Amino acid sequence: MRWIIHSEAQFEAGHALKVYRGEPEAYHHHLWKIAIEVGADGLNDEGYALDFNEVHQSLRSATADLEDSNLNQHPEIGVPTPSAERVAEVLAGRIGPMVSTFGGTLVKVSVWEGPENRVDLIL
Amino acid sequence: MRWIIHSEAQFEAGHALKVYRGEPEAYHHHLWKIAIEVGADGLNDEGYALDFNEVHQSLRSATADLEDSNLNQHPEIGVPTPSAERVAEVLAGRIGPMVSTFGGTLVKVSVWEGPENRVDLIL
Amino acid sequence: MRWIIHSEAQFEAGHALKVYRGEPEAYHHHLWKIAIEVGADGLNDEGYALDFNEVHQSLRSATADLEDSNLNQHPEIGVPTPSAERVAEVLAGRIGPMVSTFGGTLVKVSVWEGPENRVDLIL
Repeated sequence: MRWIIHSEAQFEAGHALKVYRGEPEAYHHHLWKIAIEVGADGLNDEGYALDFNEVHQSLRSATADLEDSNLNQHPEIGVPTPSAERVAEVLAGRIGPMVSTFGGTLVKVSVWEGPENRVDLIL
Repeated sequence: MRWIIHSEAQFEAGHALKVYRGEPEAYHHHLWKIAIEVGADGLNDEGYALDFNEVHQSLRSATADLEDSNLNQHPEIGVPTPSAERVAEVLAGRIGPMVSTFGGTLVKVSVWEGPENRVDLIL
Repeated sequence: MRWIIHSEAQFEAGHALKVYRGEPEAYHHHLWKIAIEVGADGLNDEGYALDFNEVHQSLRSATADLEDSNLNQHPEIGVPTPSAERVAEVLAGRIGPMVSTFGGTLVKVSVWEGPENRVDLIL
């Protein structure tokens, strides 16, 4: 990919890992931050790689049902366990097809579980 | 590349895409932010990869004529259309030769068109 | 690597390059920031790639003796010269073995020598 377009979103949600170091985790909330990177090989007829607004809208649409939610009760994220990695996998599964409709390729999903805990899923 | 040196700069400038979704865009201003990544394979005789000040100076020199400018009237950036991607291409063409004079290789130019719209050019 | 876990730490320390552009540098202090990226290929039985707390603890442990120190007097960092690159090399040598004990692979160490001067060591 020659061009990478970025987008970010945030939402508040609670979760508890089903098992952490052998014990169930206590339920707690985080401000979650999501960043995506969407690749494109060239520029379109209007002189840009992808429409920033379409990329942002894809991310916002994919995270809309997570705001103020309990991730343990989410049908996809809650299984097998609502880790930051599971959030990344589920969002990748939603966003990849969306951005491909306008010529983008999802290459990375980053999830911040609070300000200090960040994991990237490399696609 | 084993080592990557980073530098950032900002400038205020206006632009209007000549065509956006089929229509001319209204002229508007942004605070543009530029970040570059410059690679080097090893350390020099003084024990560092590249001189931070030389990298910063290359970026500042390359963006000096854009401060408070109308990007549509810029002879290079205005053609074919003053998109963030075109800003990245023109800056890459200026900065690559500069950093090569002191042993660096320009590997990425990132352009923020306002706080939320970021595109990277991978070189 | 499919998963990348991030961690950051900061410390205050002084240094002076032994030679910079042919002259000894004056001794001065910085707020140094360190960021690491630790890779993992898959998720563990508890549904996450690596334990964020173990990654953070590795970084904090590796930087503990640098807080409020003179890097020129550090037995490893001071030789051959206490550059940001040398800080990165020494921290990589400490952190790589630590994170491998819990299944991680250190892939990048970034060092900020003050707010504007950043160098990455790609492993």
